Amino acid sequence: MNEIAAPGLLDRAIRRITSVWRDMAAGVSRDEDDSIEAQMRACLAARGGEISARNRAAKLAQSYLALSEAGRLDFLRTLAGFDSDPAAVASAYAGLQSAADAAERAAAQMRLRQALEAPRLRLLTQFTTIPDGMKFLVDLRGMLLDHARTDPVLAALASDLRGLLASWFDVGFLELRRIDWDSPAALLEKLVGYEAVHEIRSWRDLKNRLDSDRRCYAFFHPRMPAEPLIFVEVALVEGLAGSVQQLLDQKAPVLDARTTDTAIFYSISNCQRGLAGISFGNFLIKRVVDVLSAEFRNLRAFATLSPIPGFRRWLDGKLDEPALLGEDEAAALAGLAGAESGGEALRVLLGRRGWMRDAGQRKVLEPVLIRLCARYLLNEGRERRAADPVAHFHLSNGARVERINPLADTSEKGMKESAGLMVNYLYDPARIEQYHEDYAGEGRRNASAAVRKLAKG
Amino acid sequence: MNEIAAPGLLDRAIRRITSVWRDMAAGVSRDEDDSIEAQMRACLAARGGEISARNRAAKLAQSYLALSEAGRLDFLRTLAGFDSDPAAVASAYAGLQSAADAAERAAAQMRLRQALEAPRLRLLTQFTTIPDGMKFLVDLRGMLLDHARTDPVLAALASDLRGLLASWFDVGFLELRRIDWDSPAALLEKLVGYEAVHEIRSWRDLKNRLDSDRRCYAFFHPRMPAEPLIFVEVALVEGLAGSVQQLLDQKAPVLDARTTDTAIFYSISNCQRGLAGISFGNFLIKRVVDVLSAEFRNLRAFATLSPIPGFRRWLDGKLDEPALLGEDEAAALAGLAGAESGGEALRVLLGRRGWMRDAGQRKVLEPVLIRLCARYLLNEGRERRAADPVAHFHLSNGARVERINPLADTSEKGMKESAGLMVNYLYDPARIEQYHEDYAGEGRRNASAAVRKLAKG
Amino acid sequence: MNEIAAPGLLDRAIRRITSVWRDMAAGVSRDEDDSIEAQMRACLAARGGEISARNRAAKLAQSYLALSEAGRLDFLRTLAGFDSDPAAVASAYAGLQSAADAAERAAAQMRLRQALEAPRLRLLTQFTTIPDGMKFLVDLRGMLLDHARTDPVLAALASDLRGLLASWFDVGFLELRRIDWDSPAALLEKLVGYEAVHEIRSWRDLKNRLDSDRRCYAFFHPRMPAEPLIFVEVALVEGLAGSVQQLLDQKAPVLDARTTDTAIFYSISNCQRGLAGISFGNFLIKRVVDVLSAEFRNLRAFATLSPIPGFRRWLDGKLDEPALLGEDEAAALAGLAGAESGGEALRVLLGRRGWMRDAGQRKVLEPVLIRLCARYLLNEGRERRAADPVAHFHLSNGARVERINPLADTSEKGMKESAGLMVNYLYDPARIEQYHEDYAGEGRRNASAAVRKLAKG
Amino acid sequence: MNEIAAPGLLDRAIRRITSVWRDMAAGVSRDEDDSIEAQMRACLAARGGEISARNRAAKLAQSYLALSEAGRLDFLRTLAGFDSDPAAVASAYAGLQSAADAAERAAAQMRLRQALEAPRLRLLTQFTTIPDGMKFLVDLRGMLLDHARTDPVLAALASDLRGLLASWFDVGFLELRRIDWDSPAALLEKLVGYEAVHEIRSWRDLKNRLDSDRRCYAFFHPRMPAEPLIFVEVALVEGLAGSVQQLLDQKAPVLDARTTDTAIFYSISNCQRGLAGISFGNFLIKRVVDVLSAEFRNLRAFATLSPIPGFRRWLDGKLDEPALLGEDEAAALAGLAGAESGGEALRVLLGRRGWMRDAGQRKVLEPVLIRLCARYLLNEGRERRAADPVAHFHLSNGARVERINPLADTSEKGMKESAGLMVNYLYDPARIEQYHEDYAGEGRRNASAAVRKLAKG
Repeated sequence: MNEIAAPGLLDRAIRRITSVWRDMAAGVSRDEDDSIEAQMRACLAARGGEISARNRAAKLAQSYLALSEAGRLDFLRTLAGFDSDPAAVASAYAGLQSAADAAERAAAQMRLRQALEAPRLRLLTQFTTIPDGMKFLVDLRGMLLDHARTDPVLAALASDLRGLLASWFDVGFLELRRIDWDSPAALLEKLVGYEAVHEIRSWRDLKNRLDSDRRCYAFFHPRMPAEPLIFVEVALVEGLAGSVQQLLDQKAPVLDARTTDTAIFYSISNCQRGLAGISFGNFLIKRVVDVLSAEFRNLRAFATLSPIPGFRRWLDGKLDEPALLGEDEAAALAGLAGAESGGEALRVLLGRRGWMRDAGQRKVLEPVLIRLCARYLLNEGRERRAADPVAHFHLSNGARVERINPLADTSEKGMKESAGLMVNYLYDPARIEQYHEDYAGEGRRNASAAVRKLAKG
Repeated sequence: MNEIAAPGLLDRAIRRITSVWRDMAAGVSRDEDDSIEAQMRACLAARGGEISARNRAAKLAQSYLALSEAGRLDFLRTLAGFDSDPAAVASAYAGLQSAADAAERAAAQMRLRQALEAPRLRLLTQFTTIPDGMKFLVDLRGMLLDHARTDPVLAALASDLRGLLASWFDVGFLELRRIDWDSPAALLEKLVGYEAVHEIRSWRDLKNRLDSDRRCYAFFHPRMPAEPLIFVEVALVEGLAGSVQQLLDQKAPVLDARTTDTAIFYSISNCQRGLAGISFGNFLIKRVVDVLSAEFRNLRAFATLSPIPGFRRWLDGKLDEPALLGEDEAAALAGLAGAESGGEALRVLLGRRGWMRDAGQRKVLEPVLIRLCARYLLNEGRERRAADPVAHFHLSNGARVERINPLADTSEKGMKESAGLMVNYLYDPARIEQYHEDYAGEGRRNASAAVRKLAKG
Repeated sequence: MNEIAAPGLLDRAIRRITSVWRDMAAGVSRDEDDSIEAQMRACLAARGGEISARNRAAKLAQSYLALSEAGRLDFLRTLAGFDSDPAAVASAYAGLQSAADAAERAAAQMRLRQALEAPRLRLLTQFTTIPDGMKFLVDLRGMLLDHARTDPVLAALASDLRGLLASWFDVGFLELRRIDWDSPAALLEKLVGYEAVHEIRSWRDLKNRLDSDRRCYAFFHPRMPAEPLIFVEVALVEGLAGSVQQLLDQKAPVLDARTTDTAIFYSISNCQRGLAGISFGNFLIKRVVDVLSAEFRNLRAFATLSPIPGFRRWLDGKLDEPALLGEDEAAALAGLAGAESGGEALRVLLGRRGWMRDAGQRKVLEPVLIRLCARYLLNEGRERRAADPVAHFHLSNGARVERINPLADTSEKGMKESAGLMVNYLYDPARIEQYHEDYAGEGRRNASAAVRKLAKG
Repeated sequence: MNEIAAPGLLDRAIRRITSVWRDMAAGVSRDEDDSIEAQMRACLAARGGEISARNRAAKLAQSYLALSEAGRLDFLRTLAGFDSDPAAVASAYAGLQSAADAAERAAAQMRLRQALEAPRLRLLTQFTTIPDGMKFLVDLRGMLLDHARTDPVLAALASDLRGLLASWFDVGFLELRRIDWDSPAALLEKLVGYEAVHEIRSWRDLKNRLDSDRRCYAFFHPRMPAEPLIFVEVALVEGLAGSVQQLLDQKAPVLDARTTDTAIFYSISNCQRGLAGISFGNFLIKRVVDVLSAEFRNLRAFATLSPIPGFRRWLDGKLDEPALLGEDEAAALAGLAGAESGGEALRVLLGRRGWMRDAGQRKVLEPVLIRLCARYLLNEGRERRAADPVAHFHLSNGARVERINPLADTSEKGMKESAGLMVNYLYDPARIEQYHEDYAGEGRRNASAAVRKLAKG
């Protein structure tokens, strides 16, 4: 679930936005020579009234976008400077300490919270009124996140902004929309840019993904109506799909969606870097399961076809462990590779381009890879946090590990990250709650009997 | 600008909502015997995942609405109990005190803010997902406000909720919609209930207020699409209107809106008690001025015809002050009333029902009332807070006092509150900013030359 | 199924329309002094291009509406004068007669049709472009129908216009819309005006008819979006409803629509006199049955509660026929009324106001009335045309006579027209086709066993 | 203004449609073995009611689409067979002949018209109810037109269908919609298929034509909402555009539309072969001029950049006429080409690929070509019908010939058809009516002074 900044798109949008903002800003009384800080102060003082403040905010946004990266960081540090008054905080805390009973304590705590509310929060809110202001704030947080680790002042500002965005982007405010070939071309073009799992290579590829046996859904925010927040691509098929290349094959026949029995979620992409850490994915999957169930009574299973991004890296770190392979496995691999140990043999074999086109090699390698992958998915990592991030995401959402598929993603990326393996996570509507509790509460990872057996073996 | 709870409307809505909520709640695993507190705890723990938590919230909302008033207060106190952990707050504050530099201080302050974020905030947010959940929260705050003065714990909860609502109802998220005779009957029916200035007496009266020489605009929130937040009624007329009864006369001829020159804002009503203190009025007026300017190039003036709710109360308190009246005024009044002093005469005359139908009495009374009213509006109260609340509202928004009209509201309420006087506040688009600054910054109240002269005289 | 002209509504609309038309007409080059005929000729010649012709049509429409009734008839006769050229018709017919084979005949017939196409048709079509032009044409036909019987020239014009309207208002172009309390007040106001079966007495009465256990659907035309063409009111109830007063009782409890089992169509009103003879009713009923079936799986029966407008008139004409009543019936009635014959007794008893409040009289009268009504509905009239117009309408649509209800409409009109009786016609989706064929093809009228027995008895 | 059938699109649509039709047809009682003719008869008899008839029509449409071309022609001939009854026509005509006065004549003529109304018309109308039925009828007429010249029976059917379509597609029912990059991808894809003037080569090319300094508008019919009927592409530029390659250059800078002064209509394409002869083009241009005038106050001129499809063909036929060229022209050309006569030289020079890249040749050739083109446009053809079809279209609409541009379309097609020349037709809103009258009434072709001078020279 990578995230994409799509800078090209932003740049074009910026040009359009700034022209509107220029019009708004034109209404602000002449103070062009004012420093950024003075302008921010004028916004906060709401000089000329709150409406003028909003026009000033448009002007500030325009100034920001005109700056170089260094200039933008200065801008953000200046903004971060509009923090709470330490004296007011200290005095409010003193009040809290001297509170005599629960009632006094509640009142004092309320005052402490108010003292801690930084003026910069109010200023950030003023950007919401301007057209595309919400996208501006989301991108602002994207920028802040890039520097939050090294700059605690910007980190604090990012934290404030996260609070605002988490409140505004609560799932209660989001709209689920279906995206299909009748969607605006401008939106489809963005999808191409945001797709983070399986690259969309052409309009023809895209159209194929929106055909009558496919579905695509995205969350949108009412104040960012042209910007998807997250989207999922679904294929309606017969039985669990085990190969993403087959799913995306433009020459494959189109199925009659009303007779398929399985919905495969084969790609989920977050679109807004600035909303990192504000979670939509689990809601999206659950909502789409509901929508599909209502439209297609014929569907009997909902599952993903997911990458295993951490498998090879984990495996490479284990190759020298003697306990990694069984005796028979080690012997067969060693024989095949002409290597001394099973681990060494694995390293050699996986290093060969095109091993998966050799039936003999596949016959030996695949069972070993699948077994190790089952172990990786079910046993590795911390108690409530599977080592693989995609596994963690779906287990958290209440899915179970259903099947591991060999030669499922033969793209260069797929071979490199997971030796071509992909996994189906199954969402059983009747068990989502229970499975979520098992994992989040007790750290138990659910899986099909077959996968469980592999992981134990 | 009174506010109306419109309990009848709410009750009906509640019946509808609870039926939907029942369906959502039906999905929640069996724990009917759980106490309210246990249910809240389950919501916060997100047992079964965040989606289940939202379904639980629906069940909680349903329980709340089924309670008596006392039960509801208990519910709210239980909710308020999900407050910050004092130890975590103390520890975070200690960290703040030991911060060595600005960077450490920023980080520590961020942690203190997080420690102060009460879990109840998260629970309140979970209500947004359920249908009509936003209206539920707004009405919850209405209830809290009724008890905030006497109960600091509920006041703290109300303060948290205010923070959320202020963020969600920021004007950047609101939609301005025109309301006319083609609007849904259900919405128009609500308008009748919410009108707080000049009662709407019948569908015929309402239709007259929505005729082709009238306009009505309201702000709506996307998550409460059937509920107006605030609305304004406008009459398009020739010249400043000086009588609200004339404006509302159903037999008056309909003007051709394209040839009128003045827009009169004659009624502004807030609709949601639970949003008290979150300000929309100034935005509404400014936006409507923009919309009308764009539609009707012919308009040359934008003004209100406003009540003066505090005039008579103020005047009654002054009647015994000798300096209140000029010598000639006092003499004329005393003669008319057969009273000893001018003040006493005023009291007698204003106490007579129907004095305004006696031309002789009007001739003496009106100039005195208008002069005193000018003084009341321009000189009374504190420096940046006019005594009259409606005057304070419009002066804050950048209007000026333009004209005081006798016999402008001859309804019982109008005679009782302001001796029938009403005032036009003028919004001059080119001066709104300046006038706002004059008042909010320096405490100067702008007025037409005529009114200024009266106030001085 | 009466039809209502609703002249008041039209007048108001006319004022609005003419103001737009004036603007369009303003673009037409100066020829104000031209006679109506000259203007029509200019329209047909498309002087200045087809677009100018359309502007001219707006001007013509405006002139028409400004005329007195006599003036309008002159206008229409002038318009009717733009008829086919007799010489061209004669020549084309000669061509047809001399056609040597099928191919020549087809070509000649095509030319004859073209020769018969009156220029006035083209002119009528030009009105479609102007705003509300479609409503103008519909009302024009309404006017023509009023005079068609006495004026063959206007009848021919009405026939041309019928052809156009039948083509434009083909059910393929109509939109079915649900009307509820969220519909525009302006539309609901029209409903009140158009309701032709059971008068709507107030907004409260209307709101009750749109409550959650009621449904109202109407057909609309895309070019007359604010004008319903026909609408039906439906009550969702338990079991066949037998009293319209109970259905319309505002104090009756609101049922949970999801647990009802029967949909009662209790009022169908045509709204546009000018569309008389262009049939929508059968489509409307069938479509609404489909829509309701999809929304409410619980519904097991679809039936009407219909007036019997011709029953009393028919009965009164039969009172002197000795065979009308059975011996026992006659005796009982005569005894009750102190009359000499059963027929005479019936006349006396039905003439008494309030007989239905006397249990003794009801006990004797009701069985007789119901039996006679069954006979009237099933046996009277011509072979494929039941005597009662409402019966004919529903039998044509594929319904059957299900039940006759005493004291079902106790309004003055109901007592006078049908002695308070109403009838349920049942629409069984599985048998509509068959029943239609039985009636339209073979003249058989279907009915429940009980009603058939009564009719024979 | 070529027209494109776009069979690929149709085929795909057909697959989708037939699946819906199958569902409708499934409701028709079992009569699969019935011949096409028997099915048509059942439709007309409305067996089982009119609604059943419409379901039967769906079944018929489905049968039609499943047929081979020969089968379809049989189907259409069978349909054409449902013609008027000759005896009824003869009898009605006899009635007309014996009519004694105007009233009788009007009535008799009405009856003759009714007798001539072929039953097949009613059957065609029944197709409107089925989804995509309108598109089915339009395509049906496309098929009929292909055979109308050789088959008078199909021609007569085509004429009937033309009458219906002309009535339904009257401009009063059409919707003008803007098409831009936010339009549905499926619609944009159709645009690519329908563009008949300057081929759209890629999504990138298309996006460039929909950029902020471009506009595209199309007419749609409410019953064919996904199918454009005709569309126009407009470029907003500074000054008259003289080269279509420059207009379509994807690397050209995007202008600020608010500062441009000229709107260039550079491509108009009809999309539906089956609507041939039903005119929209003039309405489209006029409406778009209005829309653009309202949006951009800055626009001072509206003109086309149009092909001259007949120029080279006409010129080639004139090359041997001695009077074609002036003496000087002939000499210069002959010298350049080493040919004996001017005409021969022209033939040789225009036959050379790439002459336009030789400055010397261009200097001699261009003035001659422009002069001859002016003559072709203004003097050739019949009195009210310019020889060039595009010239005739724009002159009929009230435009004038403004400027002839050399090297304006250097595509292969442009060089071949018009030696690279293109022409600007100017639409002056104030003179459209007059110019239309000049041309349509008196046969005068308006042009700028410069072009008039050239044509005379």
